[in-house]
Amino acid sequence: MKIRIGIMGYGNLGKGIECAIQQNPDMELKAVFTRRDPAGVKILTDGVKVYPAAEAAGMKDEIDVMILCGGSATDLPKQTQEFVKLFNVIDSFDTHAKIPEHYAQVDAAAKESGKVGIISVGWDPGMFSLNRLYANAILTDGQDYTFWGKGVSQGHSDAIRRVEGVKDGKQYTIPVESALEAVRSGENPELTTRQKHTRECFVVPEEGADLAKIENEIKNMPNYFADYDTTVHFITEEELKRDHSGIPHGGFVIRSGKTGWNGEHQHIIEYSLKLDSNPEFTASVLIAYARAAYRLNQEGQSGCKTVFDIAPAYLSAKSGEELRAHLL
Amino acid sequence: MKIRIGIMGYGNLGKGIECAIQQNPDMELKAVFTRRDPAGVKILTDGVKVYPAAEAAGMKDEIDVMILCGGSATDLPKQTQEFVKLFNVIDSFDTHAKIPEHYAQVDAAAKESGKVGIISVGWDPGMFSLNRLYANAILTDGQDYTFWGKGVSQGHSDAIRRVEGVKDGKQYTIPVESALEAVRSGENPELTTRQKHTRECFVVPEEGADLAKIENEIKNMPNYFADYDTTVHFITEEELKRDHSGIPHGGFVIRSGKTGWNGEHQHIIEYSLKLDSNPEFTASVLIAYARAAYRLNQEGQSGCKTVFDIAPAYLSAKSGEELRAHLL
Repeated sequence: MKIRIGIMGYGNLGKGIECAIQQNPDMELKAVFTRRDPAGVKILTDGVKVYPAAEAAGMKDEIDVMILCGGSATDLPKQTQEFVKLFNVIDSFDTHAKIPEHYAQVDAAAKESGKVGIISVGWDPGMFSLNRLYANAILTDGQDYTFWGKGVSQGHSDAIRRVEGVKDGKQYTIPVESALEAVRSGENPELTTRQKHTRECFVVPEEGADLAKIENEIKNMPNYFADYDTTVHFITEEELKRDHSGIPHGGFVIRSGKTGWNGEHQHIIEYSLKLDSNPEFTASVLIAYARAAYRLNQEGQSGCKTVFDIAPAYLSAKSGEELRAHLL
Repeated sequence: MKIRIGIMGYGNLGKGIECAIQQNPDMELKAVFTRRDPAGVKILTDGVKVYPAAEAAGMKDEIDVMILCGGSATDLPKQTQEFVKLFNVIDSFDTHAKIPEHYAQVDAAAKESGKVGIISVGWDPGMFSLNRLYANAILTDGQDYTFWGKGVSQGHSDAIRRVEGVKDGKQYTIPVESALEAVRSGENPELTTRQKHTRECFVVPEEGADLAKIENEIKNMPNYFADYDTTVHFITEEELKRDHSGIPHGGFVIRSGKTGWNGEHQHIIEYSLKLDSNPEFTASVLIAYARAAYRLNQEGQSGCKTVFDIAPAYLSAKSGEELRAHLL
C-alpha cells in the first residue's frame, strides 16, 4: 500500500510536492486542498481532485501525511498545530527565531492526537541545519559559516517591488567568492554582512520613473540592502521574463575546526547546494520526511520532531539491508 | 557524570580518540587497552592507565563505551562481536563488502547482551555514507559520485614498500579536477577509474637500487596502480620525513539529480572534507557516535546500528532545546 499524501496549498511548493510524489513510487497523491476556488486550480496529476481547504478534516482517514505548503508568516503558525490534530504533517516553517514556540505548540497538539508533526523541513532550515549539527558534533572546537546563493530571495524581490516607480523586479543574493575562499583555507575570518554577500537587483521601472531615485532608494533600504554592496540593473519586462523567471538558489555550510592534543590539525567540512528550483528541491526534502513521519507514526510515535530527531534510514524507500549493502 | 570511554588499541586512531575526548567535556578517558606490553605504551592523558587487552572484561562496569581501534582485516571481525557482549562499542569497520555479515554477527551478540554496537563509523564509511543516503532520499532520480583525496592511502603506501629496492614510500590519491568540474556542472559523466583519480608516489630507494625497474613495477602493479595515471618521485629519507609525514585525506560526495514534472530542473548536492589528519578526524566522528551509543543504551536500546540508524541529535552534547534554538 502506498503512502497517501495530501497537499495543503497549491503554490510553487505545493506543485513541487506533486512533482516529487511522481518520483517516489511508494507514494501517491490523494488530494490537493486550496483556499482559492478549487474550480480555478488546475493540477498536473490525472484523477486527483482539488478540494476546499475546509474539507480536509473530512478526509482524515484517507490521507497518511498532509504536507503544509503555506507561508511561515501567518499560515503555518496556525495550520501546523491545527492539522496535526487530524494528520501526520510536515511543514517548512522557516522563521528561525520562532521555532521553539512553534515546536512547543505543535508538540502539544501532536501528543494529544497521537500524530507526528515534523517542522522546519527543507534546506535552511533543514539540510543546512543537519550539516551544522553533524559538523559541530564532530569538530567541537571550530567555527561555522553559512553562505546563501547564488539565488533568488523572495523577500528582497518583494521589497524592490514596493519601491515607488518599480513595476517588477528580482533580487539575487550572491556569496562573495573571496570570503568563501578565506573560510575554506582555514583562516577562520571574522566576516561582516557586507563581506559575505552581495545583492544584485534587476528592476523593471514604470514608464517615466526617476531611475536614479529608484536606485538610491533600493541601495539605502534598511535591513534589506543598506548593509550590502548592491547593484541595480534596469531592464525591460521582456528581459525580466526571459532571463529571470527561474527560482534558483543554493548555498554553503562550512565548519572549520581543529583536532589534536594541541589543536595542531585543521579540518574543513563543507556542504553545498546548487539548485535550479528552490521550491522543487525543498519539496523533495519534504517528501522524504513525509515517509519518515508515516513510518514513525506506524511505529507508535507521536509528537513534534525536527530533522535533528529523525534517523536517516527513515527517509529512504530502501530497506536497512539494502542501505547497508549499497550506500554504507 | 561523565561518559566513561575505553580505548582498545593505541595506534593513530586510538591516540586520536584520546585527543577527541579532551575536546568533549561530557566524556572522560577511563582506560587504554593494548596487546603490546603496557609498560611500553606511553599515553598523553595524566592519571589514566594502560592495561593488557585481556584485562578489559574485568572493567566492564567501569566503562560506558569501548572504542575499538583495531584494523578491519583481522581485528574488528572478531573484536566487535566479542566486546559488545560486555560494553557498548563503536568500530570503524571499513571493508564495505563484508558489512552485512559483520552487522549480523554484532547484532546477534549485542541483542543478547543488551548493549549497543555502532559499526562502520568514520568518514567513509560514515559521513560519506550519510551524505549518499540523504542525497539519494531527496534526489531519487540522479547519479552518485565519490572522489577521494587529496590524501595518503595507507594500503597503497604499503604496496609501494613491498616493491624490491624500496626502503620507504608514501602514496597520495588525487581526484582529477576536470572530472570533479564535469560532475558539478551536471553533465552526469560516465567516469572510468583512470578519469577520476591519479596516484602520486614518493619513494625512498635503497642504495644502488634500479630506479627504472622500481618505477615500472609500481606503475604496472595490478589493482593498486595499473588502472591509474601514476607518477613516481624518488626522494631521500630526509625529504620523506620532512615533507610527507602527515596523514591528510579528504574527498567529495556529489549527487546530481533532476526534479520537475518532466525532470526539467537540475540540482547538485556536494559534501566535502579536507582533513589534516585522517585518524584524528575519524576519531572525532567515533567519539560523537560513542555519545549516541551511550544514550541509546540508557534508553534501553540494544543491537547493532550504523550511522543510518542514529538520529542526529544523539551525537551532540547540546540539548534538543539548544539545538532547535541555535542550529536549526
